[in-house]
Amino acid sequence: MTAQDAADIGELKIKWAESHAPVLSSIARDHLPRDVLRGVRIAVDLPIEPKTALMCLMFKRAGAEVVVGTDPLYIHTDVAGALARHGVIVKSLNHESGDGRHENLVSVLETGPHVILDGSGNLGALAHSAHPEVFETLRGVSEETTTGVRRYRRLHANGLLKIPVFAANDARMKHLFDNRYGTGQSGLTSLLSITNLMLPGKRILIVGYGWVGKGLARFASAFGARILVTEVDPVRGVEALADGHVVLPLADAVTEADVVITASGTPGAFTWEHISRLKDGAILENVGGSELEIDVSALIAHAAKCHAVRPFIEEFTLRDGRRINLLGGGKVAFNVSAAAEGHPIEIMDLTFSIQALCVLHMALHGADMPPAVYPVPSDFDDKVARAKLACAGMAVDDLTQTQRDALSEWDLA
Amino acid sequence: MTAQDAADIGELKIKWAESHAPVLSSIARDHLPRDVLRGVRIAVDLPIEPKTALMCLMFKRAGAEVVVGTDPLYIHTDVAGALARHGVIVKSLNHESGDGRHENLVSVLETGPHVILDGSGNLGALAHSAHPEVFETLRGVSEETTTGVRRYRRLHANGLLKIPVFAANDARMKHLFDNRYGTGQSGLTSLLSITNLMLPGKRILIVGYGWVGKGLARFASAFGARILVTEVDPVRGVEALADGHVVLPLADAVTEADVVITASGTPGAFTWEHISRLKDGAILENVGGSELEIDVSALIAHAAKCHAVRPFIEEFTLRDGRRINLLGGGKVAFNVSAAAEGHPIEIMDLTFSIQALCVLHMALHGADMPPAVYPVPSDFDDKVARAKLACAGMAVDDLTQTQRDALSEWDLA
Amino acid sequence: MTAQDAADIGELKIKWAESHAPVLSSIARDHLPRDVLRGVRIAVDLPIEPKTALMCLMFKRAGAEVVVGTDPLYIHTDVAGALARHGVIVKSLNHESGDGRHENLVSVLETGPHVILDGSGNLGALAHSAHPEVFETLRGVSEETTTGVRRYRRLHANGLLKIPVFAANDARMKHLFDNRYGTGQSGLTSLLSITNLMLPGKRILIVGYGWVGKGLARFASAFGARILVTEVDPVRGVEALADGHVVLPLADAVTEADVVITASGTPGAFTWEHISRLKDGAILENVGGSELEIDVSALIAHAAKCHAVRPFIEEFTLRDGRRINLLGGGKVAFNVSAAAEGHPIEIMDLTFSIQALCVLHMALHGADMPPAVYPVPSDFDDKVARAKLACAGMAVDDLTQTQRDALSEWDLA
Amino acid sequence: MTAQDAADIGELKIKWAESHAPVLSSIARDHLPRDVLRGVRIAVDLPIEPKTALMCLMFKRAGAEVVVGTDPLYIHTDVAGALARHGVIVKSLNHESGDGRHENLVSVLETGPHVILDGSGNLGALAHSAHPEVFETLRGVSEETTTGVRRYRRLHANGLLKIPVFAANDARMKHLFDNRYGTGQSGLTSLLSITNLMLPGKRILIVGYGWVGKGLARFASAFGARILVTEVDPVRGVEALADGHVVLPLADAVTEADVVITASGTPGAFTWEHISRLKDGAILENVGGSELEIDVSALIAHAAKCHAVRPFIEEFTLRDGRRINLLGGGKVAFNVSAAAEGHPIEIMDLTFSIQALCVLHMALHGADMPPAVYPVPSDFDDKVARAKLACAGMAVDDLTQTQRDALSEWDLA
Repeated sequence: MTAQDAADIGELKIKWAESHAPVLSSIARDHLPRDVLRGVRIAVDLPIEPKTALMCLMFKRAGAEVVVGTDPLYIHTDVAGALARHGVIVKSLNHESGDGRHENLVSVLETGPHVILDGSGNLGALAHSAHPEVFETLRGVSEETTTGVRRYRRLHANGLLKIPVFAANDARMKHLFDNRYGTGQSGLTSLLSITNLMLPGKRILIVGYGWVGKGLARFASAFGARILVTEVDPVRGVEALADGHVVLPLADAVTEADVVITASGTPGAFTWEHISRLKDGAILENVGGSELEIDVSALIAHAAKCHAVRPFIEEFTLRDGRRINLLGGGKVAFNVSAAAEGHPIEIMDLTFSIQALCVLHMALHGADMPPAVYPVPSDFDDKVARAKLACAGMAVDDLTQTQRDALSEWDLA
Repeated sequence: MTAQDAADIGELKIKWAESHAPVLSSIARDHLPRDVLRGVRIAVDLPIEPKTALMCLMFKRAGAEVVVGTDPLYIHTDVAGALARHGVIVKSLNHESGDGRHENLVSVLETGPHVILDGSGNLGALAHSAHPEVFETLRGVSEETTTGVRRYRRLHANGLLKIPVFAANDARMKHLFDNRYGTGQSGLTSLLSITNLMLPGKRILIVGYGWVGKGLARFASAFGARILVTEVDPVRGVEALADGHVVLPLADAVTEADVVITASGTPGAFTWEHISRLKDGAILENVGGSELEIDVSALIAHAAKCHAVRPFIEEFTLRDGRRINLLGGGKVAFNVSAAAEGHPIEIMDLTFSIQALCVLHMALHGADMPPAVYPVPSDFDDKVARAKLACAGMAVDDLTQTQRDALSEWDLA
Repeated sequence: MTAQDAADIGELKIKWAESHAPVLSSIARDHLPRDVLRGVRIAVDLPIEPKTALMCLMFKRAGAEVVVGTDPLYIHTDVAGALARHGVIVKSLNHESGDGRHENLVSVLETGPHVILDGSGNLGALAHSAHPEVFETLRGVSEETTTGVRRYRRLHANGLLKIPVFAANDARMKHLFDNRYGTGQSGLTSLLSITNLMLPGKRILIVGYGWVGKGLARFASAFGARILVTEVDPVRGVEALADGHVVLPLADAVTEADVVITASGTPGAFTWEHISRLKDGAILENVGGSELEIDVSALIAHAAKCHAVRPFIEEFTLRDGRRINLLGGGKVAFNVSAAAEGHPIEIMDLTFSIQALCVLHMALHGADMPPAVYPVPSDFDDKVARAKLACAGMAVDDLTQTQRDALSEWDLA
Repeated sequence: MTAQDAADIGELKIKWAESHAPVLSSIARDHLPRDVLRGVRIAVDLPIEPKTALMCLMFKRAGAEVVVGTDPLYIHTDVAGALARHGVIVKSLNHESGDGRHENLVSVLETGPHVILDGSGNLGALAHSAHPEVFETLRGVSEETTTGVRRYRRLHANGLLKIPVFAANDARMKHLFDNRYGTGQSGLTSLLSITNLMLPGKRILIVGYGWVGKGLARFASAFGARILVTEVDPVRGVEALADGHVVLPLADAVTEADVVITASGTPGAFTWEHISRLKDGAILENVGGSELEIDVSALIAHAAKCHAVRPFIEEFTLRDGRRINLLGGGKVAFNVSAAAEGHPIEIMDLTFSIQALCVLHMALHGADMPPAVYPVPSDFDDKVARAKLACAGMAVDDLTQTQRDALSEWDLA
């Protein structure tokens, strides 16, 4: 297939996404009129696939200059081709030496963005650690992930944060849906399609029972898996128990698992200590927010050999002969990478609606906001939720005045 | 059956509850030694059934005087008999005129409690509105329900609150389990056992998609119901949509419903406007926190006739001939009333472990706490959660030092 | 409560059942006109509860004389009282010595029935073994359960069967619904209400993965149980595996189980060998078709002591101190007994519609049918299924002529 | 990617399949020793993907000559490349004119097979209608699908069948798993991955509630879809109702559906009459057994225009502007085609174990079997089921002698 053909397919995919993203369309119609972002440079570090592309085009249509760049593993080349045609700048180097990720991020920063839509805090960390010139133009950031929000909060706690940041991840219309249903569905369907296996008879160990872990557990058990959960928060542990799962310390659980999925958001969640106790043939996948959840370097260091056994699956043979199957190099966002279609369009329709409002707000008002990590205003949630319900032909009520009165009384049960 | 025989059965039921409430037992062992509550008078307004009874006995064993009293509908007489044998004072009048609820609550207050374990804020509201003498002895309150917490918050907002209150409901180990799985299971199984019906082919309308509504929807759809949800919060509405349900304004949804379950915590949630649009044969149940969610007086006022059609089911015939079946008089906590076994023991094991810690804290320290609504300290949650996991042979991990370090870094994904 | 009051309540319950049994009503309207059963004596051995009572009354309204009698455990006395008022003869002795079951069955046979509606083959076995005079009047039998059909087939295989028998159990509209959803729901809800426990964190061992076992497993896992299955048919074992359960030999599974539910239809399925390996506190329930699935005599013989711990629960203490909780004496049909409401009305609406057609057919044509076990004619299934769908406002299509033609071709894919 | 590279990937995929197909491996070990099929020519009409390839190689290793050929849409070219390397003859023409399907099937027949492993009866129908020379060498057939078995039965009913046929589809270890869980999982995951959509908020219309429809409904409702079912069998209709779905005539249901999945096995199930009533944007997929379930020719004839909107999705615009999205050309087995990974390996492990035994039996004994459609011997099911359980570390029991005795008694309940 030629690059030309690929870009044609990328166009089709973006158009398909658009036709199934009515919420983002309505937000764009109402809040992103032509030229509202005229002259604004927006930098995006997210997987380059049809839904991200759609959001970039909407910024573009509103007058912005948009640059995207990310880890090459997360770039759908057909979509990148289509984006380029529309004048979105795509940084998608895939160097022979190294994987191109660092180079891509740096070259994104070099465009001097006014607003960053960051994923896992990568662009922000890079700017704060090595590219102070970015802050000359940067007005604000909107951050997509649990992990990234945590990183920005640490920056702020250390007194280092230089710009205002929206914790877009923490918007209810983002994490309650994207993290739970989005990663739940895409984490599971990517596992199934990449391995061509089924789950009954298998034990799936889910590392972390936050929104992502809960979503995965729900869908995986509907597909017949028996679920093991590890947690560090005992209340979440009891939630997993109440949902019918078994909760064990990781060192114990790992010996029973046929599949391990990390969803903890914590670097160092799955170390050599755990890898070394896996069963022969175990499958290892990371859908969490940290690139470092699985200690892949340790796996490489201890393996006697390693080779591809299917697209996106590498088999590592340990010295005692046990084989470990690693999906997608253990990278973050593997499930939304080129290996799979990623989150459903309807999920990203919500997430990117929130992001569109956050990015717009930062473009217009970020310069006036002191450096801090800000919650997303609740009316953003409200707008997006109402639009979603309307698109589905559904609706909620308003409290009646009688109810408001009753709720403001203390003398009524 | 004689009262003597009934009390024997009540004893057995309490003992059975105790043998399945290992968390509360361990909390009592560790925190409620003999005499720690010597001289403390504790007043309880909760359904009098085996689990509440067990908690009362534990307070008693720790030296407290305990008085319980509530709406007669919520009193299992066999359990009340057993409690009385152990010296717990039970206020269980069931007057010919009126239902005895008000009288019971007043006579509870008249005992001059030091700590109140309140349900839906009933004792507190009564004390604040008409019994100021209570505050001469009262040190603090621990409140069980969402509705009650709201009422105490209103009292405080109005500058009227006279004592410190623990929002026990808002403890994670309470509402995440009791409201969701407890009411979910007991709300559903009480519906099934009282009506002897099944759910496939029926549309169940759930009014409110908070923790209670979510729990009900989960179990009811597992039993084959199609779920309609009404909400006033659009984000929760989208959650219901994402869970596979249909979300409609109440006025529209009500015409389609075979069963309506109110779970909103809001007085006036289901008014004559809605009742008047119900289908012939519709079933109406309240499992929410407010006695006034369903406007039962309006139903009575508009009905041409009314008669019992099964134990705990009254059929109201409207003037146009349509029949409405009301379960348990539309009262709060119907599902935990004498009509049914109530929440599972294992759920109340968690709730009452939290309550035991809250009541103990109020007995010892309430006098020093300014009037306010206090969150339950997170170490109460932690203690109860760890004990629960241990009882189930399960456990969580602690973060390693390496992980703690990593999480405190901003320069690691 | 007086017997008079009880019978009033029984009346209400039957009327409630009738108002939720539209299929049986339509079958009665179309096929059981007044006097069609004039002079016919019908004997019924089924639990005496509202739905059975309703069917009996419909036979009565069609002119039949009806006698019912069964194990006293399965008699709702309020319903029995109501039935008696309507002239149905109820054999409900509850002897001081013995449990009255045998006496009840004998006195049912002594009425000289023309048609027997048998449950588990009890009346038929008694007639064939000790009451040959029954065959002087008896025209035919309709048998309700898997176990009973097996017994009649054995009788026939041994050349002993003296009357025609409808395998009502094997009608698709019976076993696909009654056994699966009916026992599934009532087996589970009776367990929950009688024990007041919940299932998450527990392992439920289901002995037998036929329709009953499948139904139980589905509902129990929806309530959070982890399911262990034992089977003797390896294909059914793989079905259990594919449904996400663990399949083990009984001797191994039993040591892990918190609750054991027998659903095998096989006498001797759960013997002392298995009982002796149970965990302390294990709960034992029989919802299967054979009175002898659990070897209760062995349990009694080996127990150091035994006492009631809650209504319908006996605790047996083994010599080593382990305690076993037996529900409902381990009797068949415990879940539909006086301890619980039994199968949902909508399920029995289907079963008894099939039975009404079978009993009618035997009354009219049984005398002309040679002794054999007959399948229920498929048009009975068809009638009942279409009526059910119509009552639910649903419908199926007919094949078009084009489709019929296509399906009769071999040269079209 | 070069053909060489593609074949390398095909090899890896086959090897991966082998490592997850322990049942087929054990069947091969026990029943397909070297040379047992020496000189036998086996023709296979199944999608050419890794699992089929594995079975072909096992026949090859046992000495057979193997030829495969099918519709080009169902050919994974990487796998076909790998198969060719091993000496399996692959007929995979993809003619410019026409789709190559007919040519491929004819050239498969021209190899003069001794045994045919047929899919949907295509090779058999072609042989019986136009290639009588095939019967000079052909010993027997094993048929994979419900549709194919129906076609062979029609041939036999018309007195035309010339060879013995195993109804492999009807083996319990085939249809209970492959049709239900296999098509259920692959039908759903292919829909999700090809469209990148999610199901909550959508109504999925499933045409036919046989094993395939039941599997689809189970998984789709677990993913949040609301299910509409159409059927022609009223008992299956009531099963769908009992499973919580809505059952309507197709002409009514179709106007409500967002997605239609045909699973009826019936040609002409979804005609222009139905297509013409679809909503704008409806998605149409066929996972049933007949190439003709959806009347694609009518769709083409009535469409104003048609173009690809994503890989494997064509959008047809009707004259009134409504758009219909057809997946995979509406072809049979789309879900197992080149568009997706197909059924899980563990499912095909069971199916192809049955097929291996059937093909072997036909090779050795087919010549002695009169033309007829034969059920698969139950010991084939038994062998495969026991092997599956053993591979999963699970097992069933045998009935004890006491139980056998009890089950042969009629005088025990």
